[in-house]
Amino acid sequence: MRRSSFLAATVPAAHGGLGVTSLHDLMVGVNRLARGDASTAIAVNMHLTGVLGAALLMDRSRTAGEEMAADVLRELLIQVGRDDKVMCFPLTEAGTDHTSPRTEATPTRGGYLINGRKTFATISPAADLFLPTVRVPKPEGGFLTATAVVPTGTPGLTVEDNWDSLGMRASGSHDITFTDCFVPTRFLIGQVDSYGSLGPGYLASAMMVHIPLLGAFLGIAEAAREYVVAEARIAKNPGHRSLSSRASVRLLMAQMDIALAECRGMLDRVSHLVDDLLNRPESNAPDIMTLHRAMKEVQCAKYVVNRRSVEIVDHAMTIIGGRAYLGRNILSRLYRDARAGGFMQPFSPVDALEYIGKVSFDLVSALE
Amino acid sequence: MRRSSFLAATVPAAHGGLGVTSLHDLMVGVNRLARGDASTAIAVNMHLTGVLGAALLMDRSRTAGEEMAADVLRELLIQVGRDDKVMCFPLTEAGTDHTSPRTEATPTRGGYLINGRKTFATISPAADLFLPTVRVPKPEGGFLTATAVVPTGTPGLTVEDNWDSLGMRASGSHDITFTDCFVPTRFLIGQVDSYGSLGPGYLASAMMVHIPLLGAFLGIAEAAREYVVAEARIAKNPGHRSLSSRASVRLLMAQMDIALAECRGMLDRVSHLVDDLLNRPESNAPDIMTLHRAMKEVQCAKYVVNRRSVEIVDHAMTIIGGRAYLGRNILSRLYRDARAGGFMQPFSPVDALEYIGKVSFDLVSALE
Amino acid sequence: MRRSSFLAATVPAAHGGLGVTSLHDLMVGVNRLARGDASTAIAVNMHLTGVLGAALLMDRSRTAGEEMAADVLRELLIQVGRDDKVMCFPLTEAGTDHTSPRTEATPTRGGYLINGRKTFATISPAADLFLPTVRVPKPEGGFLTATAVVPTGTPGLTVEDNWDSLGMRASGSHDITFTDCFVPTRFLIGQVDSYGSLGPGYLASAMMVHIPLLGAFLGIAEAAREYVVAEARIAKNPGHRSLSSRASVRLLMAQMDIALAECRGMLDRVSHLVDDLLNRPESNAPDIMTLHRAMKEVQCAKYVVNRRSVEIVDHAMTIIGGRAYLGRNILSRLYRDARAGGFMQPFSPVDALEYIGKVSFDLVSALE
Amino acid sequence: MRRSSFLAATVPAAHGGLGVTSLHDLMVGVNRLARGDASTAIAVNMHLTGVLGAALLMDRSRTAGEEMAADVLRELLIQVGRDDKVMCFPLTEAGTDHTSPRTEATPTRGGYLINGRKTFATISPAADLFLPTVRVPKPEGGFLTATAVVPTGTPGLTVEDNWDSLGMRASGSHDITFTDCFVPTRFLIGQVDSYGSLGPGYLASAMMVHIPLLGAFLGIAEAAREYVVAEARIAKNPGHRSLSSRASVRLLMAQMDIALAECRGMLDRVSHLVDDLLNRPESNAPDIMTLHRAMKEVQCAKYVVNRRSVEIVDHAMTIIGGRAYLGRNILSRLYRDARAGGFMQPFSPVDALEYIGKVSFDLVSALE
Repeated sequence: MRRSSFLAATVPAAHGGLGVTSLHDLMVGVNRLARGDASTAIAVNMHLTGVLGAALLMDRSRTAGEEMAADVLRELLIQVGRDDKVMCFPLTEAGTDHTSPRTEATPTRGGYLINGRKTFATISPAADLFLPTVRVPKPEGGFLTATAVVPTGTPGLTVEDNWDSLGMRASGSHDITFTDCFVPTRFLIGQVDSYGSLGPGYLASAMMVHIPLLGAFLGIAEAAREYVVAEARIAKNPGHRSLSSRASVRLLMAQMDIALAECRGMLDRVSHLVDDLLNRPESNAPDIMTLHRAMKEVQCAKYVVNRRSVEIVDHAMTIIGGRAYLGRNILSRLYRDARAGGFMQPFSPVDALEYIGKVSFDLVSALE
Repeated sequence: MRRSSFLAATVPAAHGGLGVTSLHDLMVGVNRLARGDASTAIAVNMHLTGVLGAALLMDRSRTAGEEMAADVLRELLIQVGRDDKVMCFPLTEAGTDHTSPRTEATPTRGGYLINGRKTFATISPAADLFLPTVRVPKPEGGFLTATAVVPTGTPGLTVEDNWDSLGMRASGSHDITFTDCFVPTRFLIGQVDSYGSLGPGYLASAMMVHIPLLGAFLGIAEAAREYVVAEARIAKNPGHRSLSSRASVRLLMAQMDIALAECRGMLDRVSHLVDDLLNRPESNAPDIMTLHRAMKEVQCAKYVVNRRSVEIVDHAMTIIGGRAYLGRNILSRLYRDARAGGFMQPFSPVDALEYIGKVSFDLVSALE
Repeated sequence: MRRSSFLAATVPAAHGGLGVTSLHDLMVGVNRLARGDASTAIAVNMHLTGVLGAALLMDRSRTAGEEMAADVLRELLIQVGRDDKVMCFPLTEAGTDHTSPRTEATPTRGGYLINGRKTFATISPAADLFLPTVRVPKPEGGFLTATAVVPTGTPGLTVEDNWDSLGMRASGSHDITFTDCFVPTRFLIGQVDSYGSLGPGYLASAMMVHIPLLGAFLGIAEAAREYVVAEARIAKNPGHRSLSSRASVRLLMAQMDIALAECRGMLDRVSHLVDDLLNRPESNAPDIMTLHRAMKEVQCAKYVVNRRSVEIVDHAMTIIGGRAYLGRNILSRLYRDARAGGFMQPFSPVDALEYIGKVSFDLVSALE
Repeated sequence: MRRSSFLAATVPAAHGGLGVTSLHDLMVGVNRLARGDASTAIAVNMHLTGVLGAALLMDRSRTAGEEMAADVLRELLIQVGRDDKVMCFPLTEAGTDHTSPRTEATPTRGGYLINGRKTFATISPAADLFLPTVRVPKPEGGFLTATAVVPTGTPGLTVEDNWDSLGMRASGSHDITFTDCFVPTRFLIGQVDSYGSLGPGYLASAMMVHIPLLGAFLGIAEAAREYVVAEARIAKNPGHRSLSSRASVRLLMAQMDIALAECRGMLDRVSHLVDDLLNRPESNAPDIMTLHRAMKEVQCAKYVVNRRSVEIVDHAMTIIGGRAYLGRNILSRLYRDARAGGFMQPFSPVDALEYIGKVSFDLVSALE
């Protein structure tokens, strides 16, 4: 994959990449990959969409006259675009949410010391660069949020090699510990004063990550569907009917295809909608309310796709019968993989319903 | 509405209409109308999409060198475009499906005698022209399918004035009886040899009718949602909380908005998909398999929108509480109206699941 | 019905009734009635279970040495048992819940003046005695809750004759207004200091009302099911298949019967469980926590039965097709009737989920 | 467990067992076991309910004067009751259903040679006696169905040690192959002429197996629920709220408890119903129609319990969040275990809906 330049898809062309900026197109690519192996697809997605975020941040920094930040980001993007570097963005920590990291960047001479523990750091075994979200203490109390750039090999950085999960086993989502990892000042990027709240940068990057990610869960469902279609046409024993000759099996297949059509419609609509928003010129950048309303649509799609992908695989197992429960059957892997979607923040189903309901009633101020 | 030229929307511009051919655009228009009154919207939709079918048939007839048919259709379209005539397309009969009408056109001197009874003839009280589907006996046995043109006032034509239903009370979907109604030969149009089967013309016209029609059911759901949003923000009594301040109400509203997002995604996708198919030049006309696959997507959308619109209104009633059960409350009307969708052929939910399942397994030959 | 002594079912035998105390048995009786007409069944149920509550209160008052209250209740029960009087228990008011009535009993010479407005006063046109819940101001501020006995003909009592609803049209659930209705002191019964909270008396009487009431909604579903079974076996046209010969119809019928089995299992279990609790001797009366856990089970059953009864009728309509949407078809009435269940307090689905969740986590103190 | 005499629960007391004949009581026992470990519980259930079937068959054989069969069964029951022997009943084969085994008993001198392959032979590693269903060729063509008794150590009997599954990993449900396994004539028991059909013996034994088995799936759901209740009350970090303090979490917990109440109600009702049927004296034995109607109720319960147990564990995972996806978390095991239920014959969800629908329409003759 490194050789195919797929990993440089979202690096600007000027820096050696393909310059893809459309989430719709990324979603289609990640979807195709996931039909083969979803855990690889989600690993790649974390890299690709993180890189896309870095590219957008570079542009914004340049526009804002923040040359140092823009230069650092350019360097990083060149490493991805020309040298096939892989990025890992550890966001999650036990006992807190993504907007309130406890991994801390403590100021020290010439930079910061990073301390903390991240979980679910997808693609970590293959990563050359780690970019954890961190909090930075403010002199007056409270915190800023930022991203630290920690290259592999930095003393104090450990990939814990402890990923053991129900599914998505090839995603390499190990814990990462940072123990007094030194990063120079310029490698603490994207500082914003929105600790604990859903700021515009957070909303934008969440939408960037999740739209293509949903393509991966659609891919899981499609793989289950294709397996069933192929199997159900075959009469397993001479003189026996094929599964597809049974009306009851066809009705369950219809339920699967209805669920697929729901996912496709929602992903199609929401990806175009967000592409329109995020590719606007800076002068016409969406305000926070507009971002919340877009994020709400993304969350509606996420809620449905995460559920439907599980249901579709479940129906596929029902049609195939007992052998689908065996470890060697592809459906038992797809069933374990599909369930991962609902856990991915932001948001879990419970959080998503809370969020959507607030936006529905225009209670956005309660969210800021 | 006659004055606004809305009723001439699908008449070609050359014949006095607006020349709308996009089902997506028609769907949006019907949707807006339905937010105010769904039964009017579905009545208008039957006229508009029937007229659209007539316009396409005129073009196809002209291309095929069938000048007489083309001329008749041009006359009819001009009556709609210039004289504000309203068309009613009675399709349904008790005890049979749309592909196998029993209303019969029996050859007689100079034309045909029409006999039979149609049900659910939406917009019949306002109609100037009735265009029932009929069967025409073939000399060798069996039937052709065709459409008869029967102007209001034709002896033997009776609008039974018996529409009494759970909802959609303004749609005027009375029974129509035809008793030895004479129509001249040229007024029996669109004869095809596909009695009892899902031919290309049938599939195309079903998609034309149902895509905008689904917009009407989305409109019902949207009207319920808007009512709830407005009501739920108000504290009903001094010192009381508004409904929207309750977490449980917001979660139910989230379910409503997720369901709306499902409908919008599916309708958006399927309307563009079918517009692409039906607006192709004759030389690139879709084959029957392609039409079946498109029809399957339409049916998936219909299945979901028909259910979700009921569920959304149901949730709205739950949020509002007991007064939503009163006859004067808008939600009790919307609840009765929304349930109509599932009955509309083709297809009911049971038939739809059968059809989708067959197409899913490429058992299309079983459908022809 | 007055003649059949059915209306005296819950009056103790000593006072001219049948002495039924089992909610399970009442549920079965109300269920059978509802198969024929649900709005009559719920009307009768309000009377029967209110009378049962009065009989239990009489016993408890006697045990507690409250002879005056016991004597009043005996008089009332004799009126029901011997003179076929009908009782109406108006509980609901707009803008508040059942534990916090705003209808007020203001002390006056020799009694109280009742003022307020009740809604959904089921069986009101047939009632001889009205027993609204009221609040009584406490000298130190705050309120007691009590029940006033207001015979028909009392000056200031008006049955508003304004019941106009989606369904349950024969239940006579008019608004009732009380304007300076005088009741003598002894006719204000059951005073308890639990205004605004879920006290033991409230929980017990709610369970008494709702268990048989759920039998009525099961009866609606059963009526729909029986109609479908009868219709689906008949081939509507010579040479046509019966509906039951279609696999897809049988699968939907299976869903109906699964839903019925869910309802029956839950009602069977919960009715025996509550019968065991409420028929215990006073010395072994259940504590408030036990009552909450039982009420939780009742609410689980109510949540499911209210939904399933709508779904079962909905499936029945789907199987029957378009004619089920006509006003004269029994299913369109059952569909309107079934929806009433979810509105009936305590609790609506939203309130029920809140309540169940609190009891599940033993957060009962938050409920008292 | 062998020591506790739990494994002899269903052996008649006269033969060293506890004499349990109530499916309700067995269900409760299996349920308690499954709360700890479901795969052990289902393994034990296969033994216990098979033994119960053997005890009933012994009685019936004795009544019918079939002394040889009765004596063989008595010997086997004594081995279980006194010597703690474990029985394994291999029923399932790839490509056919339970009524039509292809494992064949070919007559040979002094007995039969057994050949065939069984799958999902739960408890096989611990078994002392294998009792596969077999077919026996009839001289006139066609087959009888019977059960062969094959002790461990019989030449040609191999436990394939190939159980590798999504869950239920301790159930030991390996494949079993029989290659020219000799069994003496008296060890071929229970011959009936019902190959390929749902005869009374088949229905009775299916109900015996599945009612307690459903108790195991309820136990899985209960274990998930208990885990959540314990975890959700704890605030994970100082200054943080517990999960149970969130309204949205409580609403999801309410859904879990509603689902549990559905399962309990259905299992309670159906277990008593079947106990009443199967414990009738021979003279009052239920006819085939009665058995079908009972089997239908069992299948309704199975359909619901199999789904709800998955849903309940799924909700539990949602409440707990990301760590529930880790392999070491109990919920990820429960999620894999719960899914097994739907595969267990008779019937899978697809077959169950077909069966229920036929019984609903009294099309039982089509099932015989």
